[in-house]
Amino acid sequence: MAVARDIDDLPKNAANYTALTPLWFLERAAQVHPARRSVIHGSRQYTWLQTYHRCRRLASALSLRSIGVGSTVAIIAPNIPALYEAHFGIPMSGAVLNTVNIRLNASTIGFLLGHSSAAVVMVDQEFFPLAEEALKIWSEKSKNFKPPLLIVIGDENCDPKALRYALSKGVIDYEKFLESGDPEFAWKPPEDEWQSIALGYTSGTTASPKGVVLHHRGAYLMALSGALIWGMNEGAIYLWTLPMFHCNGWGYPWTLAALCGTNICLRQVTARAVYEAIAKYKVTHFCAAPVVLNSIVNARPEETILPLPHIVQVNTAGAAPPPSVLSAMTQRGFRVTHTYGLSETYGPSTVCVWKPEWESLPPETQARLHARQGVRYIVLEGLDVKNPKTMQPVPADGTTVGEIMMRGNIVMKGYLKNPKANEEAFANGWFHSGDLAVKHPDGYIEIKDRSKDIIISGAENISSVEIENTLYAHPAILEASVVARPDEKWGESPCAFVTLKPGVDASNEQRLAQDIMKFCREKMPAFWIPKSVFFGPLPKTATGKIQKHILRAKAKEMGPVKLSKL
Amino acid sequence: MAVARDIDDLPKNAANYTALTPLWFLERAAQVHPARRSVIHGSRQYTWLQTYHRCRRLASALSLRSIGVGSTVAIIAPNIPALYEAHFGIPMSGAVLNTVNIRLNASTIGFLLGHSSAAVVMVDQEFFPLAEEALKIWSEKSKNFKPPLLIVIGDENCDPKALRYALSKGVIDYEKFLESGDPEFAWKPPEDEWQSIALGYTSGTTASPKGVVLHHRGAYLMALSGALIWGMNEGAIYLWTLPMFHCNGWGYPWTLAALCGTNICLRQVTARAVYEAIAKYKVTHFCAAPVVLNSIVNARPEETILPLPHIVQVNTAGAAPPPSVLSAMTQRGFRVTHTYGLSETYGPSTVCVWKPEWESLPPETQARLHARQGVRYIVLEGLDVKNPKTMQPVPADGTTVGEIMMRGNIVMKGYLKNPKANEEAFANGWFHSGDLAVKHPDGYIEIKDRSKDIIISGAENISSVEIENTLYAHPAILEASVVARPDEKWGESPCAFVTLKPGVDASNEQRLAQDIMKFCREKMPAFWIPKSVFFGPLPKTATGKIQKHILRAKAKEMGPVKLSKL
Repeated sequence: MAVARDIDDLPKNAANYTALTPLWFLERAAQVHPARRSVIHGSRQYTWLQTYHRCRRLASALSLRSIGVGSTVAIIAPNIPALYEAHFGIPMSGAVLNTVNIRLNASTIGFLLGHSSAAVVMVDQEFFPLAEEALKIWSEKSKNFKPPLLIVIGDENCDPKALRYALSKGVIDYEKFLESGDPEFAWKPPEDEWQSIALGYTSGTTASPKGVVLHHRGAYLMALSGALIWGMNEGAIYLWTLPMFHCNGWGYPWTLAALCGTNICLRQVTARAVYEAIAKYKVTHFCAAPVVLNSIVNARPEETILPLPHIVQVNTAGAAPPPSVLSAMTQRGFRVTHTYGLSETYGPSTVCVWKPEWESLPPETQARLHARQGVRYIVLEGLDVKNPKTMQPVPADGTTVGEIMMRGNIVMKGYLKNPKANEEAFANGWFHSGDLAVKHPDGYIEIKDRSKDIIISGAENISSVEIENTLYAHPAILEASVVARPDEKWGESPCAFVTLKPGVDASNEQRLAQDIMKFCREKMPAFWIPKSVFFGPLPKTATGKIQKHILRAKAKEMGPVKLSKL
Repeated sequence: MAVARDIDDLPKNAANYTALTPLWFLERAAQVHPARRSVIHGSRQYTWLQTYHRCRRLASALSLRSIGVGSTVAIIAPNIPALYEAHFGIPMSGAVLNTVNIRLNASTIGFLLGHSSAAVVMVDQEFFPLAEEALKIWSEKSKNFKPPLLIVIGDENCDPKALRYALSKGVIDYEKFLESGDPEFAWKPPEDEWQSIALGYTSGTTASPKGVVLHHRGAYLMALSGALIWGMNEGAIYLWTLPMFHCNGWGYPWTLAALCGTNICLRQVTARAVYEAIAKYKVTHFCAAPVVLNSIVNARPEETILPLPHIVQVNTAGAAPPPSVLSAMTQRGFRVTHTYGLSETYGPSTVCVWKPEWESLPPETQARLHARQGVRYIVLEGLDVKNPKTMQPVPADGTTVGEIMMRGNIVMKGYLKNPKANEEAFANGWFHSGDLAVKHPDGYIEIKDRSKDIIISGAENISSVEIENTLYAHPAILEASVVARPDEKWGESPCAFVTLKPGVDASNEQRLAQDIMKFCREKMPAFWIPKSVFFGPLPKTATGKIQKHILRAKAKEMGPVKLSKL
């Protein structure tokens, strides 16, 4: 058809098409607000023009050492300026950024570096001994080991001995490395926006880490969406409580450049440090896992600056937040946006959109509605809860459990060198999250559990999350995690691990356990009540996720609940 | 290299890739806020679920008549719900939306419909006779004329006779047409996001209209950017003062769906209607050309509702706004974002980002800085002022004039059936805007004139815009436009056309003209002062742009300024 040809046959050209990449945002920030603060880390402060020059130096220095398209550059660091710069400088060279979780052990890091064939390893001075050990393990285990270029990043806030130690070993200093690069380096966007921008390994809640590969297009879309999802505007002041090494800080390093905002770095997250930063820098936004929110609401009065001097927006994801924590945050004046996602979806990809009509509901109802995982992000094109066998959507009845599945432009490229995992993850044209949920009549989804966290007692499925939500409402409990314990009669039964709030008398654990079980009895079916309750600190990942596989192993070690116990 | 292959060789699949298209936003709005008001037009009001169903009906009804990919569907209508629906329903069928300017004459519309081979023409009842005449002209002029499907859109706010007249001719009623479609129509995103979504003809400020073709990808990006650029958040209440037929309302029909906001329609824009809508619907945002702002600031007190009951954000573009108008809007409590762009860039693509450090400057300085066209949109990847011959950027000195050029993902696909114009527009890998500007030391650009509007007096370039800005500051002047008039001595000299504010004594035009010239003499070089000043209404396009080519023709008709006049 002639008409079809005419109206569609207008080819791409240099003027009307370029790759979508968040690197454009940094160039623009340097043009629009050259003198505005980009990154603040104590006394070390940069403007957007400086950050742009430093990132171009980094890209240039890498290029001079033949690091580019196809190479992976790893960085092992907490939330310091160099980690922010890595999000731009490394992809500007064409290479792929691999952010490494600093709480992993040397053996795991050695495995990751080998798996991704890291050509460069940048490491914060504090973690240099860890990196050294990881490299040793990698070199011993691999026949094709090629030593990566090692760069150490100094931090004035730390003991200078650690930096001196690294330098004494002949390792390159990060600042010296930057000096070797050209601040006017003519970086180019990738030829194809499908090109990989970042690699991140799934966190330790599961046994074998998988390398999640993300592309420039998705990072660009995620960056814009991250602003839209909670009304984050030009010039936002953002506090780095969420580690940037976790799903690239949910895309916010790139969002901040798009908004010409200011990044406030935090090496270590404590409730006091969060409140101090809010007061000192007029922080407008931060992201945090629910465990961090829990520490914020349970902070001692002298650590806080309540009432808040201005509105602070919080984006929380990473685990289903207990309604009691959400409602306590709201009472303290934080505006919490509850989101949910996975490394495989660039971080959060669903949001519990707050509805004005909820305002008139009782606080508990509000918190319950708000604790749901909600609806799809604007940039995620498909979200559903499906039966993984039939691929049929579950009815929107709030009770039928299925698996959360996503599709669209913020779903990962795939797992690195893992065709089998890719086949499973992308089966039938949807990404399989592994999370179990229901769909409510209003279309909002609600997580019931990870597939592997569900407790099967008799023939019944029990949601560990629902039991945890009840436990969090108990006045003595600070944190709670529920896993399956083998059970002679029922196959499995719920087993609770809890930590107590400061000041709670923990001398009689048995009595406390009974009190907790009684509390549960009033609120849930009898077969949901934890048959065992244990006290003590909970094992956590670097991002504050409770490591259920460790608790599950503990529960297994204890042996099955005996029939006689009933 | 094995590494390069591994990290990049993860192909697209159904789970992780889909075309970027704003159609996704409507599906999401219907899911997230099914009961929220989507479109309000007097007593006719729809929810997002209803709008989604109506758009799917429209797409389905078109598909049933074999309208799809490669077809063009034209719509001739003011800002009514059907025009909003056309922005989704037509592309959902795969067809291209052609919004027609309702103020064009029948002969021009006949030309456009023929040029785009419109397969369907949807027309608001008031404009049915115009469409009828246009079709007659098209049929007479073209050998290959194939009568399009004609659909008339009724409006309860208009005289029912017009609708009855159209129906008596056997034309299909829009509501009946929708009824023939399936509200559950399974629309699909385009296979390729480069597929055309919309066609719009350049406005009558130039002689020959060109068909600007836009694609799904660009419309998607523009929609998100339209929200980010002025902090427009979820649930915004948007007033349709800007015609949707003008660059697809700068992408805002799609933005509103992305934000699940509410569209307030206005058949006719008056200052009173704008103020009334602000009060009645709590309007948060609207867009308008500077002439509309001018009528808002010059409204009679009884037409206004000042002081404003809440903050109203205004996005103004379409012509360089006189600083005096910007500052009057600010005084009335409107927050004005000043943007600039062309049909060829999906509407505004630059923004004068407001800087906090300007707050302490005198109001006149603020207004002057704010009247500049500024910096690139987040989604426009290249903006510069260049010498069109050498393609060298002009120095950022605020005085050297060059042509504004853009490149990136919100530059049009091209002009329909016009290879020569495409070649010129995209020469050397940049889109040539035809607007002349300077670049200031802070990187902000400022328009001096359209290439064709510049006045060349002696060997000197005179910016008609700068003279107009001065005229707007004169207490008696409501509107002003300056064009070149042939001049015996200088070749060309400035000639002013002005309208006066209500209440100004216009009985002695000669004295007024002298007073205006004297006013100019204090503020500009002598050779800039208009040698002739004429009074009376100014010819305008449908979007409120003053039609300089008409004034230029008038000035030419008058003959050259004689030597003796000096």
